[in-house]
Amino acid sequence: MTPDRHRYCVIMCGGIGSRFWPYSRTNKPKQFIDFFGTGRSLLQMSFDRILPIVPKENIIVVTNAIYEPLVREQLPELDDSQVLLEPCRRNTAPCIAWAACHIMARDPQASMIVTPSDHLITNEAEFNRSVLRGFEFVEKNDALLTLGIHPTRPETGYGYIQIGQEVEPGILKVKTFTEKPDIELARVFVDSGEFFWNSGIFLWRAETIAEAFHSLAPDLAREFDKGQGIFGTDGEKAFINERFPACPSISVDFAIMEKAPNVYVECVDFGWSDLGTWSALYDNSPKNREANVTQNCNVMTYDSSGNIFAVRDEKLIVVSGIHDYIIADAGDVLLICPKSEEQRIKQMVNDVQVKFDDKYL
Amino acid sequence: MTPDRHRYCVIMCGGIGSRFWPYSRTNKPKQFIDFFGTGRSLLQMSFDRILPIVPKENIIVVTNAIYEPLVREQLPELDDSQVLLEPCRRNTAPCIAWAACHIMARDPQASMIVTPSDHLITNEAEFNRSVLRGFEFVEKNDALLTLGIHPTRPETGYGYIQIGQEVEPGILKVKTFTEKPDIELARVFVDSGEFFWNSGIFLWRAETIAEAFHSLAPDLAREFDKGQGIFGTDGEKAFINERFPACPSISVDFAIMEKAPNVYVECVDFGWSDLGTWSALYDNSPKNREANVTQNCNVMTYDSSGNIFAVRDEKLIVVSGIHDYIIADAGDVLLICPKSEEQRIKQMVNDVQVKFDDKYL
Repeated sequence: MTPDRHRYCVIMCGGIGSRFWPYSRTNKPKQFIDFFGTGRSLLQMSFDRILPIVPKENIIVVTNAIYEPLVREQLPELDDSQVLLEPCRRNTAPCIAWAACHIMARDPQASMIVTPSDHLITNEAEFNRSVLRGFEFVEKNDALLTLGIHPTRPETGYGYIQIGQEVEPGILKVKTFTEKPDIELARVFVDSGEFFWNSGIFLWRAETIAEAFHSLAPDLAREFDKGQGIFGTDGEKAFINERFPACPSISVDFAIMEKAPNVYVECVDFGWSDLGTWSALYDNSPKNREANVTQNCNVMTYDSSGNIFAVRDEKLIVVSGIHDYIIADAGDVLLICPKSEEQRIKQMVNDVQVKFDDKYL
Repeated sequence: MTPDRHRYCVIMCGGIGSRFWPYSRTNKPKQFIDFFGTGRSLLQMSFDRILPIVPKENIIVVTNAIYEPLVREQLPELDDSQVLLEPCRRNTAPCIAWAACHIMARDPQASMIVTPSDHLITNEAEFNRSVLRGFEFVEKNDALLTLGIHPTRPETGYGYIQIGQEVEPGILKVKTFTEKPDIELARVFVDSGEFFWNSGIFLWRAETIAEAFHSLAPDLAREFDKGQGIFGTDGEKAFINERFPACPSISVDFAIMEKAPNVYVECVDFGWSDLGTWSALYDNSPKNREANVTQNCNVMTYDSSGNIFAVRDEKLIVVSGIHDYIIADAGDVLLICPKSEEQRIKQMVNDVQVKFDDKYL
């Protein structure tokens, strides 16, 4: 089946992945890393995954300008009009507003899926079915659709979506969005059967999201309105470099999804993880006999189990008497931290910055 | 005081330091490393220490031929006649026999101190006094003198010397040598007051040790007798390259000291460690508030104490929840091992060799 030529994909690829420091570094964040040793980075896997659904020339990558060389290297299939370079970081709302303008200039009838570049999806066939169904729904409804993941545990690191009335089989009105709950609340959510994880994957027609920006984030919409007639032309880059920094830094969840009246959730189940933490990476990776995750590195273990090793290149790691640790080596930085203490990594990165400036970030 | 021109020093510098793997590597063993971040390697410290006692031109370094560039780089003061290059490893007896022949060819009246290159001595003034006293003793007696260290704990990693009759204040006949005892025996030794640690530092006249070789290790002596008239000439190198490999691999302790009738011990106390283990290095290194030894590396610790970090260059180490470990990084190899399990390192090195050949040794 040929992918529908009105369907577009926006891959958001500008994150800095600080939770995976030092394996993920400012100059090569998480999405550009071959996390599972498959030969493809998370970005490349995101690209590959959407290819059966969206024409190759309709896949747009939005990233920070400093990552242009990495995107070019990893996705040589993209031409200039498919790589949007943000001059600065402004969270997801400005990123999506720009991508919508860019796409509408090419195709006013466009529908689009917006997806992070650094998530893991293990059941691609189910993903494809879910996305096709989502496209069909938004193409015939004036709807902002988010994919809600069937929760398998009371995860405190995710946002939750409370479902309302079912409008089609598997597609429901959204009642509320709740940011990361504490563990007790997360348990209540999961037990209730009324809550789904917010995947951060969205579908809508370009026109629908543009209207939502105009009514719910008018300041932001106004910035992009100044570029009428410029999107898709040679002037787009200069316009963005001048105006993008003036946009407020705000997430699309906060600016649009939590406020819009026409928000729906498609309940899906395709083996998803946002890979937001080392523990998530550990849980989603193949393990050896001692329950160690060794990625694609040379590790020799003695009386050591439950560890995750993330080490680049040809390095050899020899460990003895280490259980349930993160061992991450990135050439000039080595991190050794219990998996249970990984929330400390953010503080560590701060401490490193205070002490060494940007040298090790 | 000008050092006596008949006094020589032989620094044995051919070891491969495998117990400190991977910080010490085959291509740059322990004695060539600046272990304490002072700017001087253990070899250079050994050289500096003997300079007040032995004329600079009388200091001889015996090493394996593969380490010639390292010796030249670290001790540019030495001329060609002061660097003896062994074509293969044959333990200490052949090394000392050659050095004695080399020195006798230059000065038949020579007396000499033989010392390892990789030990730590913290009280150099006391060391100097002890060595001067030892030279005086062997110069007027037909004696093989070893320096015995006053034991401060029941160390099982050292050899012990049992003392006999005192012949001069502080110099006694040796009754027995005992190799590494178990902990119970070590306690008995230390409590008895009759046992001293064998430092592996020896003094004698060149003539005395030559005679000892002839009577106690005649096969070995015969090999070197073939070189009569060649030592100290241009032909010495070719002779050694041809004949040295034929020598038995045997220690001077086993070949001579344990058998000779004229063996004496000078009881000394100058802050000595053979730095034979990571724990010894830990014990002898300055510690920070959390009792971590950080050598000269950038380490940030969280809830971590009692560790020893040995990391080259500018690398940053960030650790959390690690107590009493060895963390040694040598670029392409990282070792993490409890200090209490360091006797496993030898097995690990073997395993690494089986799996990767010499790549990481």
